[in-house]
Amino acid sequence: MTQVNATDDARFERGAAALSRIDGEAGQKVVDSLADIAPDFGRMLIEFPFGDIYTRPGLDLRAREIATIAALAALGNAAPQLKVHIQAGLNVGLSQQEIVEILMQMAVYAGFPAALNGLFAAREVFAAPAR
Amino acid sequence: MTQVNATDDARFERGAAALSRIDGEAGQKVVDSLADIAPDFGRMLIEFPFGDIYTRPGLDLRAREIATIAALAALGNAAPQLKVHIQAGLNVGLSQQEIVEILMQMAVYAGFPAALNGLFAAREVFAAPAR
Amino acid sequence: MTQVNATDDARFERGAAALSRIDGEAGQKVVDSLADIAPDFGRMLIEFPFGDIYTRPGLDLRAREIATIAALAALGNAAPQLKVHIQAGLNVGLSQQEIVEILMQMAVYAGFPAALNGLFAAREVFAAPAR
Amino acid sequence: MTQVNATDDARFERGAAALSRIDGEAGQKVVDSLADIAPDFGRMLIEFPFGDIYTRPGLDLRAREIATIAALAALGNAAPQLKVHIQAGLNVGLSQQEIVEILMQMAVYAGFPAALNGLFAAREVFAAPAR
Amino acid sequence: MTQVNATDDARFERGAAALSRIDGEAGQKVVDSLADIAPDFGRMLIEFPFGDIYTRPGLDLRAREIATIAALAALGNAAPQLKVHIQAGLNVGLSQQEIVEILMQMAVYAGFPAALNGLFAAREVFAAPAR
Amino acid sequence: MTQVNATDDARFERGAAALSRIDGEAGQKVVDSLADIAPDFGRMLIEFPFGDIYTRPGLDLRAREIATIAALAALGNAAPQLKVHIQAGLNVGLSQQEIVEILMQMAVYAGFPAALNGLFAAREVFAAPAR
Repeated sequence: MTQVNATDDARFERGAAALSRIDGEAGQKVVDSLADIAPDFGRMLIEFPFGDIYTRPGLDLRAREIATIAALAALGNAAPQLKVHIQAGLNVGLSQQEIVEILMQMAVYAGFPAALNGLFAAREVFAAPAR
Repeated sequence: MTQVNATDDARFERGAAALSRIDGEAGQKVVDSLADIAPDFGRMLIEFPFGDIYTRPGLDLRAREIATIAALAALGNAAPQLKVHIQAGLNVGLSQQEIVEILMQMAVYAGFPAALNGLFAAREVFAAPAR
Repeated sequence: MTQVNATDDARFERGAAALSRIDGEAGQKVVDSLADIAPDFGRMLIEFPFGDIYTRPGLDLRAREIATIAALAALGNAAPQLKVHIQAGLNVGLSQQEIVEILMQMAVYAGFPAALNGLFAAREVFAAPAR
Repeated sequence: MTQVNATDDARFERGAAALSRIDGEAGQKVVDSLADIAPDFGRMLIEFPFGDIYTRPGLDLRAREIATIAALAALGNAAPQLKVHIQAGLNVGLSQQEIVEILMQMAVYAGFPAALNGLFAAREVFAAPAR
Repeated sequence: MTQVNATDDARFERGAAALSRIDGEAGQKVVDSLADIAPDFGRMLIEFPFGDIYTRPGLDLRAREIATIAALAALGNAAPQLKVHIQAGLNVGLSQQEIVEILMQMAVYAGFPAALNGLFAAREVFAAPAR
Repeated sequence: MTQVNATDDARFERGAAALSRIDGEAGQKVVDSLADIAPDFGRMLIEFPFGDIYTRPGLDLRAREIATIAALAALGNAAPQLKVHIQAGLNVGLSQQEIVEILMQMAVYAGFPAALNGLFAAREVFAAPAR
């Protein structure tokens, strides 16, 4: 039923490794949670963002997570994904202070509520036991 | 008429120096363009984003511009400011390739049109004579 | 106190019938929930979206729900209404698979988080007892 | 072909009077510009926003235009409509200074780029010959 | 560690007084909640929105809260802040009916879901014991 | 330099055929316009949206274009892409009237300005010589 075929295996494997390194358990949980409703989308989520984008040379993972945290905080309508990527930022070497600075800066570009809601998301992630 | 007083001079001077370093001429042009309609806002623009935020320790300017470019491309409704900050990214040491990678990555978080419009903005900035 | 008068009765009745057919109980619950705070808005909600728009010829209800599900998933800031319209989509003949495809496609235009959050909303609706 | 019938005449006439008072020529131009592509939408635009909403008691037109200018500047993706409503604000009694203050305040809730683009829209409207 | 120095005291004190008058306890709670994660941001929140913007002459607090409620309802992605400002609107003299009218009007500019979600937020605030 | 390898050829070819059928010349122009700044993104644009998504069974192209037109009009920040997909809608069998209905309906979910700007985009596309 799915359109995935052998030729996509390299992207999938590259993506799965990147997902594991970046998002840790949280990423796999998202993919698992799609198994009953949209399994192909779980596979695409590994292949395109992680297999195609995050693994590209030209920008290191630290920089990539800065961009993702900033974008999700600015958009302000994807709280679960913002939390996953705040943890991912820690996983790839951003400090808590750096993440706080990124979120504070969003007040300038997306308003104080976006920054506040981002900071509250960060507080939750920082308070959770390390994953 | 304005509420600015001597006590804000430190923020203003710190901000003006940061604005000049980061945005170059483009930043000053924005401030100048507010002179006839909202001069206090020009001053606030120097004081808060640049005097208060960009000059904070804890996140370097390169990281700050990654965050700003990502946020503005994801929001997709502030093309002039995105162009100013693509140039600002170059000014603080991002390479053209790194900026392109940030913009491509926004396809994952804000959709392909946001990434495309960001890339077209970058092409315009990259093609302009160095400022 | 309200401005509604006899001349709007046709719109209201046409809208109430459409609301019932499309949203089932969920639509009436929304209208009821406005009774204590903004009863006129409950009436407008029946008259304009349902009495004026959904009942127009030129686009069938199936197509109208595709458009609504796509728009609400892309905007990503109206989860309760998205769930109502995922159920509405089922009510007017969309299959679960078709709704999943619409939501997956939103990854292209509004990013993967918007698609993911739409799919999770769909899973909740699909799991609820038929209404 | 349209679904409009005699019973909507009161809304239409009430709306047309409000549109003329609030938006002046600009509002009618918008309606006229829809004549060849979506004439029913031109009628709805008069009936719902202007016939149903702006003419309600409970909030004066000055307050209504404050709300509209703030919302359109914050959303940041409807420049033509923002300009129409900056002019409308002047038409119903807001001063240029008040409009500038509303737009500056949007920096807090939607970011500095939204405020800046709103102020630049205002400068254009203020510079145009009175309509 | 913070960059705040004596010269900002006037802004801070002016802002703290405005915050207390406008938002009541809710505003201070937000600032307090930042103490462990981003205390400087709590200070900035007092200084810029409240010390710099809300205390400016040229637009009264009633008008400022109309603008804020409209913007937050239209953006639709900052529910906690919308509730704080619905209460703030009551604090500075808006009636419940006026707030309901502002929120209903947002259906025109940001769609019916944004208006509905704003009205539901208002119902919660109106039902809470006076603060 | 690109990460594309032989195993992606099937996706690319499937995507290129879909792009040509759906977007006609306009799609290829977008890809070409990326050649000097982000050629890999041009390839990804063919592979993911068109190779992976539009070619999936489970939702016909007519329904897919309804969803895309609705989403882009509702987001309101991607005018060039909205025009491409209004033409794409015509290419896959939507009538001008159906597209007008979709855009009018967006007034309910994203506000009248989003609907108006969508209708004006449609008027431009409908007026252009057939492509």
